[in-house]
Amino acid sequence: MAKEFSAVELIIAKREKQELSTEQIDWLVHNYTNGVVADEQMSAMTMAILLNGMNRREIKDLTLAMIASGERLDFSTLSMPTADKHSTGGVGDKITLMVAPLVAAFGVAVPQLSGRGLGHTGGTLDKMESIPGWRANLSNQEMHEQLDKVGAVVCAAGSGLAPADKKLYALRDVTGTVEAIPLIASSIMSKKIAEGTAALVLDVKVGSGAFMKSLDRARELAHVLTQLGADAGVKTSALLTDMSTPLGLKVGNSLEVEEAVEVLAGGGPKDLIDITVALATEMLRLSGKPDVDVAPALNDGRAMDKWIEMISAQGGDPKAELPKAKHEHVVYASATGYLNKLDALAVGTASWRLGAGRARKEDPVQFGAGVLLHAKRGDQVSEGAPLLTLFTDEDGRFERALEALEGGIEIGSTSIEQPNLILDRIQN
Amino acid sequence: MAKEFSAVELIIAKREKQELSTEQIDWLVHNYTNGVVADEQMSAMTMAILLNGMNRREIKDLTLAMIASGERLDFSTLSMPTADKHSTGGVGDKITLMVAPLVAAFGVAVPQLSGRGLGHTGGTLDKMESIPGWRANLSNQEMHEQLDKVGAVVCAAGSGLAPADKKLYALRDVTGTVEAIPLIASSIMSKKIAEGTAALVLDVKVGSGAFMKSLDRARELAHVLTQLGADAGVKTSALLTDMSTPLGLKVGNSLEVEEAVEVLAGGGPKDLIDITVALATEMLRLSGKPDVDVAPALNDGRAMDKWIEMISAQGGDPKAELPKAKHEHVVYASATGYLNKLDALAVGTASWRLGAGRARKEDPVQFGAGVLLHAKRGDQVSEGAPLLTLFTDEDGRFERALEALEGGIEIGSTSIEQPNLILDRIQN
Repeated sequence: MAKEFSAVELIIAKREKQELSTEQIDWLVHNYTNGVVADEQMSAMTMAILLNGMNRREIKDLTLAMIASGERLDFSTLSMPTADKHSTGGVGDKITLMVAPLVAAFGVAVPQLSGRGLGHTGGTLDKMESIPGWRANLSNQEMHEQLDKVGAVVCAAGSGLAPADKKLYALRDVTGTVEAIPLIASSIMSKKIAEGTAALVLDVKVGSGAFMKSLDRARELAHVLTQLGADAGVKTSALLTDMSTPLGLKVGNSLEVEEAVEVLAGGGPKDLIDITVALATEMLRLSGKPDVDVAPALNDGRAMDKWIEMISAQGGDPKAELPKAKHEHVVYASATGYLNKLDALAVGTASWRLGAGRARKEDPVQFGAGVLLHAKRGDQVSEGAPLLTLFTDEDGRFERALEALEGGIEIGSTSIEQPNLILDRIQN
Repeated sequence: MAKEFSAVELIIAKREKQELSTEQIDWLVHNYTNGVVADEQMSAMTMAILLNGMNRREIKDLTLAMIASGERLDFSTLSMPTADKHSTGGVGDKITLMVAPLVAAFGVAVPQLSGRGLGHTGGTLDKMESIPGWRANLSNQEMHEQLDKVGAVVCAAGSGLAPADKKLYALRDVTGTVEAIPLIASSIMSKKIAEGTAALVLDVKVGSGAFMKSLDRARELAHVLTQLGADAGVKTSALLTDMSTPLGLKVGNSLEVEEAVEVLAGGGPKDLIDITVALATEMLRLSGKPDVDVAPALNDGRAMDKWIEMISAQGGDPKAELPKAKHEHVVYASATGYLNKLDALAVGTASWRLGAGRARKEDPVQFGAGVLLHAKRGDQVSEGAPLLTLFTDEDGRFERALEALEGGIEIGSTSIEQPNLILDRIQN
């Protein structure tokens, strides 16, 4: 880091649509992390990036600089190959809970470093913490040992991993600069590359409940993400999957663990099984196992055995009863017909307002809060039959949750065509 | 201020090229001034404004909101009309020192609230403070009384005037967002409108030594400025004037006072007389005195008498000897021919580095430092004849000043055409 730049000079360069050099990007990220570049300078820069873009080389340099700001894990000494998956976030998206043990059952280790939820999409750690005794914080050595022994670990990403990303994400959140693809992509990939996985499958969600509302934007993000993976030597592919309606029938923390266990026990809704199988197959394919039929492992107990090992290894009791909410409220179908719309954002926001999510990152979550769907989008429903049950520990929360559902449910006299669950597959 | 907004919502609106409403702009400026909107949020907003622009109504609302952030002066009880002029900043630009007494000599009061210099263009207060005894800080009442009695005052703008602008300017300076026309225009006009002048003539400088390097950009700024004046009920016009070479022969603080006094005594270089007469004539025209011939007042002592009154009223001694620098260094002509280039930025930067200007706003200035030109651009010069004399109190400064002059001086064997001093006049 010999050469010195000035923050203003770099901001003006990006403002004037110039390319930033590798040295300039390194300098910027290094000096933002250590406080030489001020928040107000970085926010002007992120707005310039959002509006003027970055090319592939700049995004790669930004990602590598964020990785270099912290520690980097190394699983090359494991006896198994490693593969991870990352979802851009959805409603009812408990796929990690099933995919990690399922892939591990086939001899590929899954080092899943996760986060907590903010906003209407829940966080994997919040779901897992509803399991009595389970702990999210592992040392690097514990993580390594568990991967070696069990083949799967879901735990909290330590603060040592890409600290520049942590600081930058908090800034983007309050300055209207979250939606920039170069920044989204470098944020996701800096953590996944630093995590040390050899293969990575991205589940890029599209639709009302997702970050990316349009297929075009999602495809653009998927291309950038997979390019970044390729540039960093991580085997990477992406599935674009529908997030215009919730995944499965259960949304909330313990509710989603419950449903994941149903799938691992050979049951559960078809959409959950399909997407779990698709993602696990893709992870195994990238790990040099292209011809594995994973679906039977959900029925014959192999995935369930791994789940029990994985939970137990982190102090969790896989047989313990899960937390239940104190209050429930049923929403009934207002007409007879086809459930043509059951909007992901509406259900996600309702679940969030019931207490399953948090408004500020220091807030606690309610483990039992959430929404149980009695019908999936596309199903036939009868007037007066239960459509949803809302759960919360504080009954004052029902009103605002019901408001969130307004306009999110439509029952029609004829059925309409519904989007496919898996919309595209992208690999560079 | 009934309605509440969120800073992120407003940043995203401008990022997406939406128009901000009057209420939104009021909320933003009010809450930035009182600290509810953070610096990092405002800098993202200013970058979005720089890149996506603002329309005439938004710029007007921004200006009015900045005025509303502080106090507003009122000179309507004076027995004379008021007129002010504002220069966007140039090298050797001591025009205020001559224009204020000249216009006052014709019964129009000039309330000139000035600033200190930062960068290569000097500040009027720094020049005036080189006059022994003169003080820049007046109370509103003192200013009012002096205007009533003398008809001209040059003093420091109090901190009560448009405090939002002060805070925003400091932020723009460190975040690469100085160059946005909506922000430049609202910054200039909020202070001038809050100052309470009835008429305003803008001297928009164009060329290497100016903020606006091209005539197109300068014209765009002049249009926005004069529209803002019209919208706020201030009679406003603008002259576009050349700033590719210094004004007059003297650049620096006491050097410029010396030269202003030469003009007020009926002497001085032609460019200074021409621009002083043009601006004073324009100020009187906007104040309802279209047929005044001001030039004779520079020769017959009327303007000089006002100067002496104006300086004395603020404790200055108009007869006192002005500060002189301790060291001087002469630059000689390297060839015989025509002085085809004598660059404003080069001379301004040299003067700044000699100590006439400051690098940080808390730095002091040297009153005697600066540059004396022995020839004007376009003049014939002989090899070995003195071209410039550099002045400073610290002889270690000559080296960097001479570096600034490199490439700034060109002597050719044939003369080339030089731009006009006054390039255009704009009024809405």
